[in-house]
Amino acid sequence: MLKLKIFSIGKMKEKWLEQAFGEYQKRLMNRVHIDCFWAKSDAQLMEWIEKESGVIALDPLGRQFTSEEFSVFLENCWEENGARITFVIGGPEGLPPGLKQKACLISLSSLTFTHQITRLILIEQIYRAVEIQKGSQYHKA
Amino acid sequence: MLKLKIFSIGKMKEKWLEQAFGEYQKRLMNRVHIDCFWAKSDAQLMEWIEKESGVIALDPLGRQFTSEEFSVFLENCWEENGARITFVIGGPEGLPPGLKQKACLISLSSLTFTHQITRLILIEQIYRAVEIQKGSQYHKA
Repeated sequence: MLKLKIFSIGKMKEKWLEQAFGEYQKRLMNRVHIDCFWAKSDAQLMEWIEKESGVIALDPLGRQFTSEEFSVFLENCWEENGARITFVIGGPEGLPPGLKQKACLISLSSLTFTHQITRLILIEQIYRAVEIQKGSQYHKA
Repeated sequence: MLKLKIFSIGKMKEKWLEQAFGEYQKRLMNRVHIDCFWAKSDAQLMEWIEKESGVIALDPLGRQFTSEEFSVFLENCWEENGARITFVIGGPEGLPPGLKQKACLISLSSLTFTHQITRLILIEQIYRAVEIQKGSQYHKA
């Protein structure tokens, strides 16, 4: 079983987001175990991240991917890091400065999304990445 | 009042998407009137689009923007086209081939999103673009 942690700041604000996020979490259940940690502040986030290795953080200046490239990237990360990956999504003000040195930075788009919608986009891309690895119809349809 | 039409294929599949999309539509209400048209097929979409001018279509090979650039782009489109813009999101198989010649092609990301989630990302970016034009806190926070 692959393991993935997602750290961010602030609870899920919207009911619809919780539903949508939960839907992808459920679809991934048999393959990827996802734990989410919603910190109350940058300081708490930094404290939690301290113990993590293989951290991937979302940043506007990070590397961009196609979904196929992201799938290969995730596969490599899981291999290099003993089937564990940690994602960090910053709060409304972006990533805590100390984190940028510690993490591998990636970007989902040149556009700015709310950090709430970013959670949905990220989990859908993780699901898509796993489906691409499996060679299913999901990414082709 | 600015006018905007969004054409795509297939109804809103998910309840959460309808809620999320509706939330941004409501927030935009005083500034941008949005009409949505969900076609049953490529053929119906093409028939509907036939009468439209100033069509912007989402395509993986389209021009990419930052949110600030997208805001300027939208403002210019509205000015050039008498306060009217038409967006087209293709179905699971992308845009009908005939449309690519007729439309201005833009891309939200190098990643592939579901055409359903694309609707949410698009309307949030339109809301963000309008807030950037107004100089509100939304894009800064």
